[in-house]
Amino acid sequence: MKRISLLGATGSVGTQTLSVIREHPDEFSVSAFSFGENIQMALPLIKEFSPKLIAVKNRQTAERIRPMLPGNVKVVYGIEGMIEAAAFPDSDMLVNAVLGSIGLEPTLAAIESRKIIGIANKETLVTAGHLVMKQAKKYDVSVLPIDSEHSAIFQSLQGQDRKALSRLILTASGGVFRDLTRNELENVTVADAVKHPNWSMGAKLTVDTSTMMNKGLEVIEAHWLFDVPYERIDIVIHRESIVHSLVEYHDHSMIAQLGMPSMLVPIQYALSYPSRLELKQTKRLNLWEIGTLHFQKVDTSRYPAVRLAYEAGNAGGSMPTVLNAANESAVDLFLDGRIKFLDIEPLVKNALDHHVLIPSPDLEAIEETDAQTRRFVKSLIN
Amino acid sequence: MKRISLLGATGSVGTQTLSVIREHPDEFSVSAFSFGENIQMALPLIKEFSPKLIAVKNRQTAERIRPMLPGNVKVVYGIEGMIEAAAFPDSDMLVNAVLGSIGLEPTLAAIESRKIIGIANKETLVTAGHLVMKQAKKYDVSVLPIDSEHSAIFQSLQGQDRKALSRLILTASGGVFRDLTRNELENVTVADAVKHPNWSMGAKLTVDTSTMMNKGLEVIEAHWLFDVPYERIDIVIHRESIVHSLVEYHDHSMIAQLGMPSMLVPIQYALSYPSRLELKQTKRLNLWEIGTLHFQKVDTSRYPAVRLAYEAGNAGGSMPTVLNAANESAVDLFLDGRIKFLDIEPLVKNALDHHVLIPSPDLEAIEETDAQTRRFVKSLIN
Repeated sequence: MKRISLLGATGSVGTQTLSVIREHPDEFSVSAFSFGENIQMALPLIKEFSPKLIAVKNRQTAERIRPMLPGNVKVVYGIEGMIEAAAFPDSDMLVNAVLGSIGLEPTLAAIESRKIIGIANKETLVTAGHLVMKQAKKYDVSVLPIDSEHSAIFQSLQGQDRKALSRLILTASGGVFRDLTRNELENVTVADAVKHPNWSMGAKLTVDTSTMMNKGLEVIEAHWLFDVPYERIDIVIHRESIVHSLVEYHDHSMIAQLGMPSMLVPIQYALSYPSRLELKQTKRLNLWEIGTLHFQKVDTSRYPAVRLAYEAGNAGGSMPTVLNAANESAVDLFLDGRIKFLDIEPLVKNALDHHVLIPSPDLEAIEETDAQTRRFVKSLIN
Repeated sequence: MKRISLLGATGSVGTQTLSVIREHPDEFSVSAFSFGENIQMALPLIKEFSPKLIAVKNRQTAERIRPMLPGNVKVVYGIEGMIEAAAFPDSDMLVNAVLGSIGLEPTLAAIESRKIIGIANKETLVTAGHLVMKQAKKYDVSVLPIDSEHSAIFQSLQGQDRKALSRLILTASGGVFRDLTRNELENVTVADAVKHPNWSMGAKLTVDTSTMMNKGLEVIEAHWLFDVPYERIDIVIHRESIVHSLVEYHDHSMIAQLGMPSMLVPIQYALSYPSRLELKQTKRLNLWEIGTLHFQKVDTSRYPAVRLAYEAGNAGGSMPTVLNAANESAVDLFLDGRIKFLDIEPLVKNALDHHVLIPSPDLEAIEETDAQTRRFVKSLIN
């Protein structure tokens, strides 16, 4: 029985994690559980999975939910509450499924408590990969990816000669606007932008797939997760999202992981690793039904966010934090209707150009850089 | 240093095996070496690789080559010579790259001498998979596939949860006539048949890819190599021959091996397993250059040889021997211009229908079945 601390239980990855756990009650249990403020959604899940510790966003939510729970359930709140849930002594594994940089400190705490780490939270690795992986090494803790591309790479590395690795190739759908030229992107709307062809996901993430900033951030994550230099990480546009990513070895052999698009596969693989459990909820891939798989080179003049991400990754230090924070701010401005789609990338570029690199930022410097960057991007608009 | 007994050194797989060994002189050496009668081709290879034992087809060839070699090189001949080469005490591994059922006895001898077995010889597993794999288990010997499809599966099984395996999917080019209907096959000629789109190979093998009997035989090999029942082995037509085969697991995740078509990759992987060495002679796969990969269901009314192979495999015992021998005879008749392309499959079917199954044939029964079948097929024509 693997006992799990789940951060972000009511989000998309969180609920899918719970559905994996639900299917395998003999394999997994939920020992600690965090959510934000959505008590209505959380309550039946708490009842179903009986975690011993609940972490919520703030004191107010804690006070509201406290009387609704049995007396032996501990309720905590705030970042300290999340850290307590992540490092909960009765847990074997942390699943970090929160959005945003708030996932970072709990992850470090879980590593120090020697939990297995399942990581669906992009910011944790993008902004603090150097801290997370260093600690993971120090405490001999596994960091397992919970997203399609990194899980595909992780699966394609199993049992292979690590010294023979020559390239990682991340596949990218190209986003909803992939068939438009740069000029045609001029007047795309928020409504246009939030419809993703293969995956159902949040508005922010859907915009990121259209700029391919999403893939740029994944390149940085891959760099940290797999300890591969940027010049050995490639992206290929693959509109069907069937090949989830590939690894090339130095005999020019490639290993790839394929499947119908579903987050359940990478979630369950991280939970069950190194075993694989049945997963009935997902569809089988029949290649002859799909028929055709397309692959296309990434044109970085069409997708400048990709170039910015490689540049920020290569610069290292605090630059990926700036990249991520500037992008989040810019996408928010776009979703609020305050800037155009094509304004996102120049804002990010401007923020990167303006930032003075901090070579090896600690947690405080990362948070300060993040906040500064968001202020800076907003200052460019107001 | 891995010391190799190479059977079939002057054939296509044999010379490519030598080219892998040539590139890695610190990793591999040739201790024993067999060829048929082509002394002119063999001599420079013997000079280059300095095997201690040479096995040739017959006494005549042995007597011809003897004076051309240094006195410390032992020359043997016939099936006993091949067995001596396969079980040579100074060898760590047998690479069985001969054509036809003559590879079987040497393989069993090498297993009993606890060599690693690299197997490029289809007949060994098709006709005697039950004997070979039983002995391999008994002597705790690894049987490593040396062909693209089985190597792809083998690579896709590494580091994965073997209990979670749900399907093997062999890819097939569909052969040179894949865009023709069954009716259009009526009058195809030998010259039409021996041009394979993706691979350069012998005439027999090229015809087998057009009937897809080749793939049917590979299904039987896969059954024995990976101990997977026939109902869990599928074939998909994939005209580009880039995805070399796939493994599906019961979480509906698939692992696949990809690369530009080249026999060097599976040969070298078998030699270097579990490590991977550099392989500069092969081209890197750039998916965006390939652009599109196609997959198509196998229509067994279009490719009846596939159905025959599954039936023979499922019947087991001596049936796969009949399948293979009848097919070889029929293809020979086609290549000799004595039957039409569309006569191949009915001849094989006739031979299978005519044969009385021997449930668990020993070596002698296999050889007798093989000879009987060949006589039977010829008797249908003469």
